[in-house]
Order: sequence, then C-alpha cells, then structure tokens
Amino acid sequence: VPIGDDAACVRLSGREDLVLTTDQMVEGVHFRRSTHPPELLGARALTVNLSDIASLGARPRWFLLSLFLPEDLADRYLEGILAGLSTEARRQRVTLVGGNLTASPVLALDVCLAGSVPRGTKPLLRSGGRSGDVLFVTGSLGGSALGLKLLQEGWRLNGKGVARGGPGRQAARLAALALRSHLAPAPDYELARNLARLRIASAAIDLSDGLSTDLRRLCLASGTGARIETELLPLPEAALRLRGKASAIRMALHGGEDYQLLFAVPPRKIPALEGLARSPRITRIGVLTSSPKRLVAVSAGRAVPLTPAGYDHLRGGVRRR
Amino acid sequence: VPIGDDAACVRLSGREDLVLTTDQMVEGVHFRRSTHPPELLGARALTVNLSDIASLGARPRWFLLSLFLPEDLADRYLEGILAGLSTEARRQRVTLVGGNLTASPVLALDVCLAGSVPRGTKPLLRSGGRSGDVLFVTGSLGGSALGLKLLQEGWRLNGKGVARGGPGRQAARLAALALRSHLAPAPDYELARNLARLRIASAAIDLSDGLSTDLRRLCLASGTGARIETELLPLPEAALRLRGKASAIRMALHGGEDYQLLFAVPPRKIPALEGLARSPRITRIGVLTSSPKRLVAVSAGRAVPLTPAGYDHLRGGVRRR
Repeated sequence: VPIGDDAACVRLSGREDLVLTTDQMVEGVHFRRSTHPPELLGARALTVNLSDIASLGARPRWFLLSLFLPEDLADRYLEGILAGLSTEARRQRVTLVGGNLTASPVLALDVCLAGSVPRGTKPLLRSGGRSGDVLFVTGSLGGSALGLKLLQEGWRLNGKGVARGGPGRQAARLAALALRSHLAPAPDYELARNLARLRIASAAIDLSDGLSTDLRRLCLASGTGARIETELLPLPEAALRLRGKASAIRMALHGGEDYQLLFAVPPRKIPALEGLARSPRITRIGVLTSSPKRLVAVSAGRAVPLTPAGYDHLRGGVRRR
Repeated sequence: VPIGDDAACVRLSGREDLVLTTDQMVEGVHFRRSTHPPELLGARALTVNLSDIASLGARPRWFLLSLFLPEDLADRYLEGILAGLSTEARRQRVTLVGGNLTASPVLALDVCLAGSVPRGTKPLLRSGGRSGDVLFVTGSLGGSALGLKLLQEGWRLNGKGVARGGPGRQAARLAALALRSHLAPAPDYELARNLARLRIASAAIDLSDGLSTDLRRLCLASGTGARIETELLPLPEAALRLRGKASAIRMALHGGEDYQLLFAVPPRKIPALEGLARSPRITRIGVLTSSPKRLVAVSAGRAVPLTPAGYDHLRGGVRRR
C-alpha cells in the first residue's frame, strides 16, 4: 500500500511478534531550532525510537511520522529535517509507511516505530533483574548533558561536524564530541539486540532521562535496589577535560539523553557477555541488590543515596541540569 | 508485555496483515480547551484514527498515545481526557499498549493505531476508483462545520449532551446535534469494514478535511474526475433549520471533520451495497468521470467547478469556513 492512503499496510511473517513504540521531540523542550542542525534533528527523531526498539532486542521495521509545523518554519529547515530522517531511515533499514501533518503553534516531531521479534525470543524488559545481577552500561555517560551545556554557552556544531564557540583547537575537538552526543546520539543497537537474542541480560532500559532516573525505573520494575560505584562510571573525555571529574560524574549520574543501554547480567552469564563485548564498548558500573527501591552510589568507600535528578517530563521547559 | 517498558509487544496471527495509522489533535488548531469537554476530546483522539483504520476495511487492535502537556493544564482536564479515551477504547475493543508524554507549550494528543486485515482481504484504498463508479457517503455532511460555527458563536455542549447558548428549546436540540457532530463524531466503522470485506467499494476515503478536498484526493489517486449533484447531498437537519439550504450545502461541500466515509461503487455492485445499507445510512451523491482532476458540482442543472475549500493543514490557525 503506497504512502498517502488513510493507513499503511505491512506484512509480518507468522513467526514474528510485533513491537511498537513512540517518542516525541518538542521545540523548547527537547531542542531549539537555533542550535539544532535540522538534518541531525530529523535523524534524532528516529534514533530515540530505534533505541527503545533495540533495548527490547527487537528489529525495527516501519515507522509513521507525525509533524507539527508552525507557520514560521522555514522550508529549508523542514527539508533538512526530512533529509536527515530519510538518510537515517535508510541506514537503519526502516521504512516510512505513513504519517500525518498538522499546523501547530510549536514545532514537534512524533515518530511511531514498529518492529518485530522472532516468536520465542523473550523481549528484554525492565522487570527481569534479580539481586546479585551485575549492572553494565554501553558507551559513556554524560556526554549529552555536557553537549547541552555547551549549546547554552554559545557553542555550535555545523553541518560538517565542526564545533565553534571558544578558543583552542583542542577545546573545539572535545566540544564537537559532546555536541554530537547531544545533537546526534548513536546508540549501540546491535549489542542490545544480541543481548536479548542470546538471553545474556536479565533486564535492560535505554538511558533517556538519566542514570539516576532510569536505574530507579529498572529497580522498581525488577523489585530490587542497586549499588553503583561512581569510580567505575564511563566518563567521556570531553567532560573530564572541559569540566573536571566531579562535574563529569554529576553529568554521568543525572544527565539524560545519552541513549546508551543500562542492563543487568546474572554473574554466570558474564563470560558470555565478555565474548560479545568488552570495554570500552561496555562498562560494569555496579550491582542489583535485595533492598527494593534502595539506590546507593559508592564513592571513595562512602555510600550515599542516589536520588533521581534526571529529567522530569512534567517539570519541563528546556531542562537545566 | 505490560505498559511501562520501552516498547509494547503484541501478537498478530500468521494470517493477518498489519495496518498502521496516526493522527494528531493540537490545541488552537483542532480544538480549544474552553469549548471541548475533555471526555469528548479524549474519545475523539481515538475516533479520528479508528476512522482511518475502518476506511481501509481493517480491524483496529492496539494503540499508542503521545501526550503533549502544557504546564497550565488542570489535572481534572487531563483526567477527563484519559477517562474519555479509555471508555471509547473499551467500546471499540482496542487496547492501549504504550505511549509517551512530554512537557509542551501546547496541549496535543497524537494517537498511533495498529490494526489488522485478514491476509487476502484487499485493503480499501483511495486509488481503486474507475470512471462510471457511483459515489456514496455515509451519514450526513456539514454537521461538524456547523458545530464549530456554533462553538465560535458561544454555544456549549455540557457533559450530559445538553446545548446552551441561545433561546428556544428547539434550537438547543438542533444545536446539540451539530455540536456533537463536531465534538464527538461517530463514524460508521462497521459499514466501512463490510465494504472492504465484501469487495463492494472500489475506493474509499474518510472525510476528515471536507468533501471538496477529500473527493479530490480520491480522484487524484484513482486517475478520475468526479461529478456530484448538490441536490443529493445528505444535509443535517440542524444545518437546514438553523442556517438554511444554501449555507447547509456550503458546509456539506467544504466543511471538514465529519469522519463519514466517501466511497465509490461499480454499478454492477450496487445491488450488493443496497443489501448491506440503505438511505439514510448511505446516500448516492454523484459519479466518477473519465476527465482526470476535473471535479464539478451540478446544481439546478448547472455544472460549476468544485474547488477544494476544505481545511488546509498548513494554512492553520483555527479554521474558519
């Protein structure tokens, strides 16, 4: 069924189950037109959904795009969004099958992404963690939060990936890394799918709202507590060098939108995990514990309660961390 | 998979194909909080999507809800939206399987609805119409446009379905009908599904943006023109009695959001159609012709070009017809 009809029609094989997710991006909440290159914004609308589908271990297939278009939107900006989205869709082998557009006082993109899991593959949920399971994350944490701070301080990333906003070639190189983490996150979809397929992880969640917030969600769903060691957190080079260690740790604990995967692995499965991925692709950061809802961060031998300080979607406006 | 994980997981049988659609409602564009009872708004967010799925002849199954929530939204209004949505979901046997919420400067609801068609059932598309096929619509046209005008003039519908805004018990009864058409449209989902299942219609589209606009879309997809007879248009009693015939015809031709079905039927299938539904449930309004893109309305023996004057989503603001 070609695009443009009232609905899209697609086919799943009889040996697949359907997976559905949706995530939206709103101007002034998730991005600003003045700081987000449109191509990266378009790609990112897909990324945040691909990350959700991958975190269940599913394969993304088809998506619908809802566009909310304000009167003052420049044609070029809209074309940039669609070009970025389209390039990323091709790269990730997902097909736009429909959507809708409406006038709106605010620019927003809402993607609904459908994927499939082979029947028999257990989706990787938040709820399967058990006390004693070891916690890992992919990539590094806090880069997106730093990128956001840099944008607020006047740094910009151009279409060629070059950052401008302060003196020094080295600072610009580091800033470009952080800006990219924020403007164009690149989750490790393949690892997430393998973790589900090979049943290595017991639970997983994608880090959209910050480790302290999303770890809490995983613990609540699994009925466990957690202890993490701040010394183990994978800190991005840019955060360490531009802001120092204390600040880098704060951003890693509470900064959102890294879209890395947080997952729990029973100790007996760790050899299998190591066969699949090693540092720096994954980092052990702590362990699930038996005290429900009790989250602690251990730092220099001292345990302090880990309080969710990530992004709360209903205390909105552009977030400040 | 329970709600609250990163994505929802559902199962289709191996003998079904998947149908996907999405439609959004934005405050100031599609509704105003001050005039739309929240329960009706919640139900309507689902209705506009159910109408799309039904117009293909599919069965609606699962949906995702994206909420855009402004800071000044009263808890009671949000609870009303969710209550209305939930009641309508139960009534139409569709299941909320996930969604997302975000802070937003403007209240908006975006529903993504997934449905199924038995493999082998040809979905009812816009593109199947042929010259000579007879055009029908369900229900009556223009009631929603009248309802919107009445809202703008100060009429209100309360939670019990009673309209207030002017003198006279008879006017209030008629106003309530029109307000309901606008605030709580009730498409004929069953007929649409039967038309597809029994292969009676050659093409169909749901009337979301007005007959003159949506008929044009059907004709463009089918490569035909169309001739409709204004004398045949099913005009709502409220429009005729509150505004007179000329105005009722204008609203029927160009008023959007009736969510009735426009469909084309090859002449040899008309007996089968009549076995399925008769006036007033369906009304013959014209015929597809062989001149591509040429749409005419015949009135008192005179043919005038029918120019799309329905809602254009990118000339936004609250529409005025």
